[in-house]
Amino acid sequence: MGIPLSDKAKSIIEDKSFAHVATINADGSPQVSPVWVEHDGTHVILNSEKKRLKVRNLERNPAVSVSIQNPADSYQYVEIRGKVVEITTEGGFEGIDRLGKKYMGVDKYPGNQPGDVRVQIKIEPTRITGMG
Amino acid sequence: MGIPLSDKAKSIIEDKSFAHVATINADGSPQVSPVWVEHDGTHVILNSEKKRLKVRNLERNPAVSVSIQNPADSYQYVEIRGKVVEITTEGGFEGIDRLGKKYMGVDKYPGNQPGDVRVQIKIEPTRITGMG
Repeated sequence: MGIPLSDKAKSIIEDKSFAHVATINADGSPQVSPVWVEHDGTHVILNSEKKRLKVRNLERNPAVSVSIQNPADSYQYVEIRGKVVEITTEGGFEGIDRLGKKYMGVDKYPGNQPGDVRVQIKIEPTRITGMG
Repeated sequence: MGIPLSDKAKSIIEDKSFAHVATINADGSPQVSPVWVEHDGTHVILNSEKKRLKVRNLERNPAVSVSIQNPADSYQYVEIRGKVVEITTEGGFEGIDRLGKKYMGVDKYPGNQPGDVRVQIKIEPTRITGMG
């Protein structure tokens, strides 16, 4: 059952913050790495390249958690646990350009490689904790 | 089978960086939160309060991964996967004071609550990846 994103979670996501995204590997162990992040008012939204480990993990197991610090105060953070409700190529390249604008101030994300497929990953929050 | 900490991993850990520590909940889902971190040349060392969720998770399942960004360059990070080889109260309060010194510049960590039991968590690296 999803819960609403708190105002604090939205505010931290709207900063130039990084989401450290934890997923479950095929052997049941955790994997975690930092990525850009945005939200749509309801979901936490990530963008990734389709072949990445975190995408393959989330396609197999939708359980996910993200830890995000306030860039202006490392001691304020949120952990948002949830499940992935959609992984789609629709809007994938638009999504990475929007994040490129947010984080780098550029109109076109410069990091795409030939053959890259960008996906939007939509996370429904189920529990929000944190500090500060 | 453990592997050595790379020089880059050691260097990022020696900065005032935060380790976003991913553990596995009882239901198999991931949990992740930022904590202070140090190393002993071989292991990644965390310090926590014994009742915390991440400690209970790691007592049940030693599989762990930490994601650490260079505080001076968010686009340089390491992910260190590994397993917890020891959780001990020995050196627990000394450990949190050492981290208090590193991160806050104080001689005594000011955050202990009555009844708190501090533990040292020793992680053997098994795989190191990253960017930058």
